[in-house]
Amino acid sequence: MKAHIITIGDEILIGQTLNTNAAFIGERLTQLQIKISGSSVVPDVEKIILEEFERTFSSNDLLLVTGGLGPTHDDVTRKCVVDFFKTELVEDEEVLSSIKSLFETRRRELTDTNRSQALIPKIATPIINSRGTAPGFWIEKEDKIFVCLPGVPYEMKNMMENFILPKLEKRLERNSFIVNTDLLTTAIPESVLFDRLGNIEKLLNGAKMAFLPSQFGVKMRITAQGETEKDAQNKLDEIEQKIRAQVGRFIYGKDDDTLEYVISKLLIERGLKLAVAESCTGGLINNRLTNISGSSQFLERGIVAYSNAAKVELLKVDEDTIQKNGAVSLEVARQMAEGIKAISASDIGLSVTGIMGPTGGTSSKPVGLVYVGICDDKLCTAKEFRFGSEDRLLNKDRASQAALEMLRRNLLGISYDD
Amino acid sequence: MKAHIITIGDEILIGQTLNTNAAFIGERLTQLQIKISGSSVVPDVEKIILEEFERTFSSNDLLLVTGGLGPTHDDVTRKCVVDFFKTELVEDEEVLSSIKSLFETRRRELTDTNRSQALIPKIATPIINSRGTAPGFWIEKEDKIFVCLPGVPYEMKNMMENFILPKLEKRLERNSFIVNTDLLTTAIPESVLFDRLGNIEKLLNGAKMAFLPSQFGVKMRITAQGETEKDAQNKLDEIEQKIRAQVGRFIYGKDDDTLEYVISKLLIERGLKLAVAESCTGGLINNRLTNISGSSQFLERGIVAYSNAAKVELLKVDEDTIQKNGAVSLEVARQMAEGIKAISASDIGLSVTGIMGPTGGTSSKPVGLVYVGICDDKLCTAKEFRFGSEDRLLNKDRASQAALEMLRRNLLGISYDD
Repeated sequence: MKAHIITIGDEILIGQTLNTNAAFIGERLTQLQIKISGSSVVPDVEKIILEEFERTFSSNDLLLVTGGLGPTHDDVTRKCVVDFFKTELVEDEEVLSSIKSLFETRRRELTDTNRSQALIPKIATPIINSRGTAPGFWIEKEDKIFVCLPGVPYEMKNMMENFILPKLEKRLERNSFIVNTDLLTTAIPESVLFDRLGNIEKLLNGAKMAFLPSQFGVKMRITAQGETEKDAQNKLDEIEQKIRAQVGRFIYGKDDDTLEYVISKLLIERGLKLAVAESCTGGLINNRLTNISGSSQFLERGIVAYSNAAKVELLKVDEDTIQKNGAVSLEVARQMAEGIKAISASDIGLSVTGIMGPTGGTSSKPVGLVYVGICDDKLCTAKEFRFGSEDRLLNKDRASQAALEMLRRNLLGISYDD
Repeated sequence: MKAHIITIGDEILIGQTLNTNAAFIGERLTQLQIKISGSSVVPDVEKIILEEFERTFSSNDLLLVTGGLGPTHDDVTRKCVVDFFKTELVEDEEVLSSIKSLFETRRRELTDTNRSQALIPKIATPIINSRGTAPGFWIEKEDKIFVCLPGVPYEMKNMMENFILPKLEKRLERNSFIVNTDLLTTAIPESVLFDRLGNIEKLLNGAKMAFLPSQFGVKMRITAQGETEKDAQNKLDEIEQKIRAQVGRFIYGKDDDTLEYVISKLLIERGLKLAVAESCTGGLINNRLTNISGSSQFLERGIVAYSNAAKVELLKVDEDTIQKNGAVSLEVARQMAEGIKAISASDIGLSVTGIMGPTGGTSSKPVGLVYVGICDDKLCTAKEFRFGSEDRLLNKDRASQAALEMLRRNLLGISYDD
């Protein structure tokens, strides 16, 4: 199966918005072994859109179009689809009732503009949009598939995952299978990881591997191929085992795992309560933990102790310690962790204090200096990190990741050193 | 001048790399008022690249190609250019000496593969690459311009800024200038905003407008054109004024503003201290506020009161109120805001409590139900929101945005109703 992707929208052409939709669709279709023959971006202009439909639909088996399906005047895709397939618009009851129920839930009145979104091309199967009002269309003609989806990424992704991809997968006959997995590490540099793995060609034995670094750590993406899915999966599993034997303790999870998810599972399994005191990360660690559904089972409370007063009043940090060592110090981090554990009657207290920048650094305490504190029933300790970057948001990400990794290693009894 | 952008490379098509090159080029050409008629991505396949050259070169004044100029087997762009223009490759002395000097600096020996990069199409003007070995080409034929640049972003950008853009600017006789701006709204649906603006064609008077929705609100992008830059800007200003007259109170900022940035400015200007008590948003609001450099000037503290115990102990919420109304209620939101204001001795207390899902909803208190509380020296109030989505992260984004918008309107004395 050969596919072409069309993204409609001036904002992409003029570089105001990155084309993440085409990247997402390209990645997902590739996973299904569908060949992407090309991808194009066109402006919100009917004539050009129609020409692009004609050019690409004839030479591909699948045409996937995003954008231009909203309710306002600049959304012209639906009209182009009607012209292209020489069909007409009809009101779809199911789509209308889904739009109505969305408006009822939001307690807003349905306007004519929104009601008009239930009009879909007669020859199309509508794709309900559970995250917005613009439906998608699935059209089949002469053994070819034409799909239209809204351009809002979180609406489009949901419709791809739950409708388009499963429907495409059923269609495909395959004789070669590719599987891949991401092993996620943090708190170890790419080069150290690479050296620890030894002879990588031998280890991979024909499979492929990429190192993908970010501020959250290094992802190792392994890709294996086989004649059957099981064959490919067996190869992949074997390589994963070999890698884990070398660098297993740095691997906090795989694929879509996040460090906060891995920690949540550990805490819930063990019935432990956590409380987190943040200074420099300003709520990011609590935010990441509460992104996990069920976080109320383990997260007792959090405090963003931005001011010194908050550190002293809420966390019982000793005022003299702040005077003597500064708010960004090993001892204050330790006392913050101790304090939040005590006041919340939790099993573990975690804390962070540091300088995120871009301003506020000194030669002895530069931007990027961070202390993480952790206290459980057995020990109360703190550790220093130096991230060496001036970027405030990157430093917040790195500090939150370091604190969560310190918590993970504490829970599993793994040392924090390389 | 009308331009088309071609990006060559499988890695873009299969979604492994985001097409930041096309976005950068689109943005820069738009700044020069060059119209981008389209953008396409093609695989590293000679036949397809040649077809794309033929299709796009004839219908545009400028064709800008990136990628496939490296020294390895999968870099086929140069060969395609030779075929397309029916020319031949010749060694260019200036390019060769720049490659040689790069290798000397890096203390590496020049290989034949690298030497071959000094071969350029006879009809082309070479563009020296000061950051890498692959030169670019500038070709003119029949009043049309054809440009090839390497795909490595920092090499391409440097060559664009220092060679291509200045050369294009000299060419352009400008008799038309385009300017644009984004007006950012939140807490009002796209359709309501559209209806409130009345007769939009009349309002725009030839200018263009796009509505770009996300979970953070609706962006209105206005684009105006004029014979001089000042003329275009005047038209834009006039439209902006008309729009603000209709829906001004929903507009929290423009262009790159974020709601947290706008609020930070207001708080700092007025010398006000803020404290934020979060239940369901779990640290997200504090996190967003502390993303702003200088947030320590106004953010006194934050509390993530996830458990009822934390609400009672830290925020002095009345235990009976929680028993009677539930933790997710108007009255608890109000008391949380009152409590955090009091304990922190801040000027404003802001609070959020709600059900983010995907689980935990009931028929009377569904997922997506959120209460925001706000207290200042004059008033202490709370408001109900219903987001109607099951997606936890989206609900957190929406709840944080609603709370920050309620704070903004409080600071400016604007009502929260449509």
